[in-house]
Amino acid sequence: MDESGFKINIAVVGLGLIGASYAMALRDLGPRCIYGIDKNEETLKRALDMGIVDKTSKKGNAFLKEVDLIIVALYPQDTVKFIEDNLDNFKEGVVITDTSGIKESVVSEINSILPDNMEFVGGHPMAGKEAGGIKFASKDIFKGANYIITPTVRNSKHNLNFIEKMAKDIGFKNVIYINPEEHDRIISFTSQLPHVIAVSLVDACVEENDIGLYTGGSFRDATRVAVINSMLWSELFTMNSEKLISEIERFEESINKLKDAIKYKDLNKLDNIFRKVSLKRKELV
Amino acid sequence: MDESGFKINIAVVGLGLIGASYAMALRDLGPRCIYGIDKNEETLKRALDMGIVDKTSKKGNAFLKEVDLIIVALYPQDTVKFIEDNLDNFKEGVVITDTSGIKESVVSEINSILPDNMEFVGGHPMAGKEAGGIKFASKDIFKGANYIITPTVRNSKHNLNFIEKMAKDIGFKNVIYINPEEHDRIISFTSQLPHVIAVSLVDACVEENDIGLYTGGSFRDATRVAVINSMLWSELFTMNSEKLISEIERFEESINKLKDAIKYKDLNKLDNIFRKVSLKRKELV
Repeated sequence: MDESGFKINIAVVGLGLIGASYAMALRDLGPRCIYGIDKNEETLKRALDMGIVDKTSKKGNAFLKEVDLIIVALYPQDTVKFIEDNLDNFKEGVVITDTSGIKESVVSEINSILPDNMEFVGGHPMAGKEAGGIKFASKDIFKGANYIITPTVRNSKHNLNFIEKMAKDIGFKNVIYINPEEHDRIISFTSQLPHVIAVSLVDACVEENDIGLYTGGSFRDATRVAVINSMLWSELFTMNSEKLISEIERFEESINKLKDAIKYKDLNKLDNIFRKVSLKRKELV
Repeated sequence: MDESGFKINIAVVGLGLIGASYAMALRDLGPRCIYGIDKNEETLKRALDMGIVDKTSKKGNAFLKEVDLIIVALYPQDTVKFIEDNLDNFKEGVVITDTSGIKESVVSEINSILPDNMEFVGGHPMAGKEAGGIKFASKDIFKGANYIITPTVRNSKHNLNFIEKMAKDIGFKNVIYINPEEHDRIISFTSQLPHVIAVSLVDACVEENDIGLYTGGSFRDATRVAVINSMLWSELFTMNSEKLISEIERFEESINKLKDAIKYKDLNKLDNIFRKVSLKRKELV
């Protein structure tokens, strides 16, 4: 990797909301060239028109030989597949990172196929929007957000620092290091479970009409992420099934405890739970 | 009631977040006088200093005889008690409304004690903040929010219109009429259940440190209302226990359906749920 910073060639693979936002934000770091790769012709044209990439391709090909940093912003299984399909196209010494929301299987599968002279640094930008696609891309989604790096013994300190610097330079506030398995356990609670809850709450709604007239902020907030990218989240949930199920069950225990206190009008118990939880929430977030 | 609008005497009972915000917003309608009633001396002093009330008292008393409109912004049981304690102090023809989040028991108890020449109009402003008390009061919390009126056969068209006009004049967008029992059923889903969920999600958190580093917007939004006023919500939940329990159980059925699909990696079922729920959420809110 070029020590002088970002005077390098970058490829962004997948120009959806996240990938296009990366391209947009990386542009400000003054890279030599940004290649955009996406299977959708219109998306590529749009990225060129927006000036966020310099060259485009519908798939990885020979030009990857000139690329120093590759950001793969695809779904988890497609991320692995892209790397598998392009092993012969990568430059020696390339650093590849990704944006996948689950890490254990993705990182281990990629490490098992990637030659020793290439390095994969697992990354998870904790950023997004309810609307997908390049037209909603924005550098702002990274501002103040958390960025997780999931290092393994295969990673060099140098390249970890490089990805950390990139994350901070494009706007992330905190960069946290955690191993891939632990990442998946924590994320099943902090990200996947809230999505499961939002979807279930909307699913449980039996009102036919006008329920919006009876809602305040609590319902809107609780269901915001129920507008969900079906293919992506089906993959994230099922690839992390075991950990997620155990978090759902722990949540169910908590809701049952509260339900019992409500059923038996146990005001002391309710008060204990509410006070403990209010304090905890203030400390947590 | 004075036909000319708000050239009347108003009393606001309870100068917490909601009551003080009412006083503040009502001030702009040019009433003759706003009386502030609160058991806390400091709160009364603050309300006078802020200029949102003209006169204060620690409890209802003889000056209520001059008051045309009373807004009781207390907890549900205290709302009933205030009216019970002041039956002899009210002016003939007075209109009393409240801000309580549950209505069936409150409305029926008040109607059972209030003489025929006085009228109670049940009101539920769907507005609030996570922080309570007069120092967080703001007219803005009503802007664009929903206001529910729960009429009974005891209400005159004239006074319902009057409360509706007041709600709109202080910033509420939609004023909806629904009977008290139906109100409590819908609110158990749209407001109480999201609070139960937020509390349970924080309660289920076993992480000791730094979980904030692994959260995105979904966790923050899902737990925002877990910072909860314990006394108020204990009362709201237990006074609406039966309806709330049945909504919690319907939510549990939905989460179990989703859990099974995740456990058995049933991608078709997940996709069906996600697509249905995404559409429904867009229509609902």
